Amino acid sequence: MEPGTCHPRLRIRIVFGDEEMIGPGKAELLERIDRCGSIAAAGREMGMSYKRAWQLIGTLNAMFCNPLVDSTRGGPGGGGAVLTDAGRTVLSLYRAFESDAADAGAARLGEMQALLRDIPAEK
Amino acid sequence: MEPGTCHPRLRIRIVFGDEEMIGPGKAELLERIDRCGSIAAAGREMGMSYKRAWQLIGTLNAMFCNPLVDSTRGGPGGGGAVLTDAGRTVLSLYRAFESDAADAGAARLGEMQALLRDIPAEK
Repeated sequence: MEPGTCHPRLRIRIVFGDEEMIGPGKAELLERIDRCGSIAAAGREMGMSYKRAWQLIGTLNAMFCNPLVDSTRGGPGGGGAVLTDAGRTVLSLYRAFESDAADAGAARLGEMQALLRDIPAEK
Repeated sequence: MEPGTCHPRLRIRIVFGDEEMIGPGKAELLERIDRCGSIAAAGREMGMSYKRAWQLIGTLNAMFCNPLVDSTRGGPGGGGAVLTDAGRTVLSLYRAFESDAADAGAARLGEMQALLRDIPAEK
């Protein structure tokens, strides 16, 4: 990688209290659920087990006053999942936070990137 | 935890290229090295093995044009480590980035926090 050739990426975890947190993984899972309409399918796209995807959504749903994902498990139609209004709100707040952080710190990220070593691409 | 009773904390990883990154762990290690004058002691304070602490510093030193930590391993005086000018610069850029991000996103963090469930303290 040559310095300056690509933008630094941010991975931001927002930690509330002792354990509650939202970060890039949960945000991506919410986005994929919104697109796929299924927790299992969204998790699969991320290489996550069915159990792990359900656990993460269980954690998120328990963290907030209102569930972020509304789901029916199994059943004749195979189940399905949708983001609730709360889910959309939290996801868009997270994405907006990320983007504001990147904007606010762009100059500092650039300064840091300028200090990186120029690593040959083949290394 | 009751919503609104404590500030959300941020854990920000800045990822450059494919693998190079700096995050809360490396920043804390640099700070502790600055305070202790020793990589091993700084790692120990963080519950990190000697090997792990040296690895992280090796990674950081290799990432940037100039090493962030200048160290002498072992020897009669038991070795020692100091932050270089580059180390101080990178650390302060990281901390400033964190603080700018928190300021820029304070309103959104507050909105997210207001949506958290009020979990009884004994739970």
